[in-house]
Amino acid sequence: MAGGGGTRLWPASRRKRPKQFLPLLPGGQTLLQATVDRIEPLVPAERIFVVTAESQVEDVKRAAPLVPAENVVAEPSARNTAACIGLGAVEIARRDPEAVIAVIPSDQFVAAGERYREAVALALTVAEKGGVVTIGIRPQAPETGFGYIRMGRPKDGAFEVEKFVEKPSRATAEEYLISRQYLWNSGMFFFRAARILDAIRLHLPKLGQILDSIAAARDDGKARAAELYPLSPAISIDYGVMEKLGPSEVLVVPGDFGWNDVGSWSAIGEIAAHDEHGNAVLGEAVTVDARGNILVGPPDRMVAAVGVSDLVVVVTDDAVLVMPKDRAQDVREVVRALENAKRDTYL
Amino acid sequence: MAGGGGTRLWPASRRKRPKQFLPLLPGGQTLLQATVDRIEPLVPAERIFVVTAESQVEDVKRAAPLVPAENVVAEPSARNTAACIGLGAVEIARRDPEAVIAVIPSDQFVAAGERYREAVALALTVAEKGGVVTIGIRPQAPETGFGYIRMGRPKDGAFEVEKFVEKPSRATAEEYLISRQYLWNSGMFFFRAARILDAIRLHLPKLGQILDSIAAARDDGKARAAELYPLSPAISIDYGVMEKLGPSEVLVVPGDFGWNDVGSWSAIGEIAAHDEHGNAVLGEAVTVDARGNILVGPPDRMVAAVGVSDLVVVVTDDAVLVMPKDRAQDVREVVRALENAKRDTYL
Repeated sequence: MAGGGGTRLWPASRRKRPKQFLPLLPGGQTLLQATVDRIEPLVPAERIFVVTAESQVEDVKRAAPLVPAENVVAEPSARNTAACIGLGAVEIARRDPEAVIAVIPSDQFVAAGERYREAVALALTVAEKGGVVTIGIRPQAPETGFGYIRMGRPKDGAFEVEKFVEKPSRATAEEYLISRQYLWNSGMFFFRAARILDAIRLHLPKLGQILDSIAAARDDGKARAAELYPLSPAISIDYGVMEKLGPSEVLVVPGDFGWNDVGSWSAIGEIAAHDEHGNAVLGEAVTVDARGNILVGPPDRMVAAVGVSDLVVVVTDDAVLVMPKDRAQDVREVVRALENAKRDTYL
Repeated sequence: MAGGGGTRLWPASRRKRPKQFLPLLPGGQTLLQATVDRIEPLVPAERIFVVTAESQVEDVKRAAPLVPAENVVAEPSARNTAACIGLGAVEIARRDPEAVIAVIPSDQFVAAGERYREAVALALTVAEKGGVVTIGIRPQAPETGFGYIRMGRPKDGAFEVEKFVEKPSRATAEEYLISRQYLWNSGMFFFRAARILDAIRLHLPKLGQILDSIAAARDDGKARAAELYPLSPAISIDYGVMEKLGPSEVLVVPGDFGWNDVGSWSAIGEIAAHDEHGNAVLGEAVTVDARGNILVGPPDRMVAAVGVSDLVVVVTDDAVLVMPKDRAQDVREVVRALENAKRDTYL
């Protein structure tokens, strides 16, 4: 999944340039490229499909050259993850309805690729038996920015999902952490194509009809998708399907592989290399008496930080953001202010 | 005087783009333009001369269109203020050796133009009688970044200069402030052309010879200046001449007109307009919970500040500076680091 827009990493990420296309990783690698490279030892490139916005098809081809061009599936409009996953499943089911699918967001960071692939391989094995499987991340901290999964009884080498729970309060997140019964919802899902399409037909019947209609089209379905897909309900796969399945129907594989959803600039400080003063630099910087900062800019722009600590400074061609690391979630307030001021050029 | 280079306002000011050419004032006015406009009610434009670096002649013409092109005097190389003032005096003496000259740095800010012109008019009147005159600024704070002038006995409506003193320690500056006997050295000087050329001949004989030779050239002296001026001693008028004159030879007119030498970014916070949270903005900015910051950028660049206070953020086409206001003097350390790293493109 490489669709949608994003402004959580504003000003680098924009409506039309979400974070999976940004050169955030060492050597200027994008998160999308890293995601393809990471899964490729397990899933040969010709079986990797990328679902993305029509406007981003070329960005995907550039960032993921390993993926065959015909495997890049364009969404006619953005309709959230249930429709996106459904459209991908229709494409794959055209080739093999019994194919086991790994649904992987393209904008996440993983430190330990081998352990990641072990977890994915286990999830795929469980999904082969016909279930719906997810990977839950073992919490490292009482994060309030993620949904959680409560683990139930062991089953098939994984665990039943007792329930999905929404983003918790701080106190609740601390209880979850201590209990060791809760995992972070990673947004990764595993199932046979036919299995998820059945579940969509049952729990999101309107989307099921649209997908069936696209699948039944004589040609590649593109014309019908252009017509019908925009009418899909815009709902996430979590709310629309996962939470409606019973505990015995969804299984979770716990994962512990240095996962980071790169949900804010402070996350960049966790995944990027640091200098000896704890400054994470992407691009060029000169620092004087500066510690623990995250300094991000284009390669031809010099960022100078003097006497500042724990700041985020992000430079792009047309904007600069300065804020303390612990205010990283408040980027949305800048975006809102720019929206209110109708400064669309910066969005 | 509009010569020299400057990096105290890095990254906006550069070796080849000193601060008098930057659009730091409301409406994008430069300090040079404001200096010309400020003196023009007193000195008609055809009698305003600008001495500048050869490489900056076109910048001067653009920033000071009122000044006749033939009044822009190019220094073949940068040789500090004694030579610069001598070269200007030679040019003016060509037209009228008895002309009274006001030497005015082009990179200073003045809040109260009318009071400024009153002080300048008085200084010119005193200088007409044949003396060397300066304006000393009544201190507002125990500044350690300026030279001081100790006032002596009243004379001719001004005061004798008892002595020039170097930049003091903090404790000494506090004594100076309390004593009310000391003024800041503004770098403004007033004298007849023949008077300063005599003083230079006496106290800087080598420079005197060079200037006489340039003055004696049959043409406009440009060829000879190109040959000889670079051989001038690089010394300031303060060290080279003023400090060597006796107390009865130099007079000072006290001034109190909202003077600011714009010596660092924190000074920009004093002269620029503020929003309701005390943020001084030159360019475009969006602030969220941000107070007392100085935010400077080109008009087509958005500066977003979230949850930060009393920071300086300066954005240019190729660099960004972030530092606390009270570290504004440490810009020089950035410049030094860039020099050491041979990153001349940023200097």
